[in-house]
Amino acid sequence: MKIAIDAMGGDHAPEAIVKGAEEAVASIEHLNITLIGDENKIKSYLSESDRIDIIHTDEVITAEDEPVRAVRSKKNSSLVLMAKEVKEKRADACISAGNTGALMSAGLFVVGRIRGIDRPALSPTLPTMNGKGFLLLDVGANVDAKAHNLVQYAMMGSIYSEKVRSISNPTIGLMNIGTEEGKGNELTKKAYIQLKEAPVNFIGNVEARDILSGAADVVVTDGFSGNIALKTIEGTAMTMFSMLKETFMSSVKTKIAAGMVKNDLKGLKSQLDYSEYGGAGLFGLASPVIKAHGSSNGRAVFNAIQQAAHMVDNNVTDTIKKTVESVEWNKGD
Amino acid sequence: MKIAIDAMGGDHAPEAIVKGAEEAVASIEHLNITLIGDENKIKSYLSESDRIDIIHTDEVITAEDEPVRAVRSKKNSSLVLMAKEVKEKRADACISAGNTGALMSAGLFVVGRIRGIDRPALSPTLPTMNGKGFLLLDVGANVDAKAHNLVQYAMMGSIYSEKVRSISNPTIGLMNIGTEEGKGNELTKKAYIQLKEAPVNFIGNVEARDILSGAADVVVTDGFSGNIALKTIEGTAMTMFSMLKETFMSSVKTKIAAGMVKNDLKGLKSQLDYSEYGGAGLFGLASPVIKAHGSSNGRAVFNAIQQAAHMVDNNVTDTIKKTVESVEWNKGD
Repeated sequence: MKIAIDAMGGDHAPEAIVKGAEEAVASIEHLNITLIGDENKIKSYLSESDRIDIIHTDEVITAEDEPVRAVRSKKNSSLVLMAKEVKEKRADACISAGNTGALMSAGLFVVGRIRGIDRPALSPTLPTMNGKGFLLLDVGANVDAKAHNLVQYAMMGSIYSEKVRSISNPTIGLMNIGTEEGKGNELTKKAYIQLKEAPVNFIGNVEARDILSGAADVVVTDGFSGNIALKTIEGTAMTMFSMLKETFMSSVKTKIAAGMVKNDLKGLKSQLDYSEYGGAGLFGLASPVIKAHGSSNGRAVFNAIQQAAHMVDNNVTDTIKKTVESVEWNKGD
Repeated sequence: MKIAIDAMGGDHAPEAIVKGAEEAVASIEHLNITLIGDENKIKSYLSESDRIDIIHTDEVITAEDEPVRAVRSKKNSSLVLMAKEVKEKRADACISAGNTGALMSAGLFVVGRIRGIDRPALSPTLPTMNGKGFLLLDVGANVDAKAHNLVQYAMMGSIYSEKVRSISNPTIGLMNIGTEEGKGNELTKKAYIQLKEAPVNFIGNVEARDILSGAADVVVTDGFSGNIALKTIEGTAMTMFSMLKETFMSSVKTKIAAGMVKNDLKGLKSQLDYSEYGGAGLFGLASPVIKAHGSSNGRAVFNAIQQAAHMVDNNVTDTIKKTVESVEWNKGD
């Protein structure tokens, strides 16, 4: 198996990418990795390995680049060359911690969709209190979703959770503003009806309040609302950690207490660290494409590689393809 | 000034309602209150006061009632009678901590809209790290909003923030999935263009990640996304407090530390307690209608009464009416 990785994407590239790649080839058998980026920079962190090769390029898509335009004009960027490795079958999957929009564009325009999937979904696994985590999709690949898109997300999320996360018969919830049937906006009302008929374990509406408590293994929603939920979780957690820090620094007594619970609080922080679950999959593309978090360290990159390897090993893409082909679609909605 | 209050709405009714009402008449001059509900139950908590009167009724709308049907069929419920007090000009404003949907229905069908406002917005003030707070609207009154609805929310939110929260020239942000112009779904792209022309201090898109850091004084969004954001904040905060509690109970050392910071952590929790800012206003109705949180205690009810009184004193409804009349609308979007 070969995985292509954009060595120049993310806040800690290329060091974190190289470290993650080295950890991955050391622990996953039959894994080969192609790193795409500045050869000199990559080599300065890389130990000799016959299972990691490099494709050199100077061109890079930055976080500031406009995604679609960047993918079209920077044809020799590490991100676009990475996607080409997959498109031209020299790699089985690819990973980037770089510009999310550009990765989605390269996924659509270079890697291509699974026939029958109208819209790919960006799908991170988020932490829950019980440590099991849940898959949220879509968080922004498709901001004006139709009901049948949400049904496809449910099917893709179900297959991924079963095959890669080893959850048997995963529960599927529709993110909504109330739990009763009939609640919601036009989109969720239609999606509810279609999800009841879909070949998934649909458990009905779930409220945003309950998703972190593990209300469902897979939560489907349109890309706009999913992005709002994801960013709100991040913002609220960040705000609370800041306030907690302020509270602990407010007096001598609280500072002493802080010292006593420091390690335990670190544990809490890592419980909320979703890079532990790998990156966000771009489900619905012809091969596995993973978006690693921009702030990924070597460990997070390793987790994303492991995730991509599991997707390849377990034929997630093929299973999605066959399942989609077997279902009749009402493309009007 | 007279404020009508549903004495039977909320988890701690009627005790919390009576306590809040008593605190309010003691601290706000010229305030008269009408409590609507079970006279015997209300009287068991109420001290003699010539500024609090009671309208007796046995009928109650519960949290489980289907909102629109309940408002139509339970014509003698405390919530509907409360709205009628306002409609028939015997009260200047009303407050309920009961069924949110039923209050919205009673607001629309009994109190009625301001002429020119197409959709009222449910508008809570949420805490920010700097303690200033921000107004989020809509959080669920109108789940399929159009761009011109969002512009009206911006104008109503601006007027409220200026008149009641004493923020001069309040900043207005559009909740979106990126900060740059051109980001977002069809709705936010259209709304962005219209907001630039609106008579408000529009500062552009704000991301959900930044709203708790005080990115804008007023954040406008459609009712679906706003509800998702609100519930996600609640769920994330709840989850983090649970995890924090678990962390503190995990060993003797952490328990000792917990004892040392207990009061400081309570302070943190109250910083996040948005009932301190009053209830959620239903802006766009012909008189001030306030939804107090279902779990309101006496203090929260008092804050909601104070908020309603400020809205009456500062002519918020009239100002909204005049401002809306002065603007040309493109009702197509």
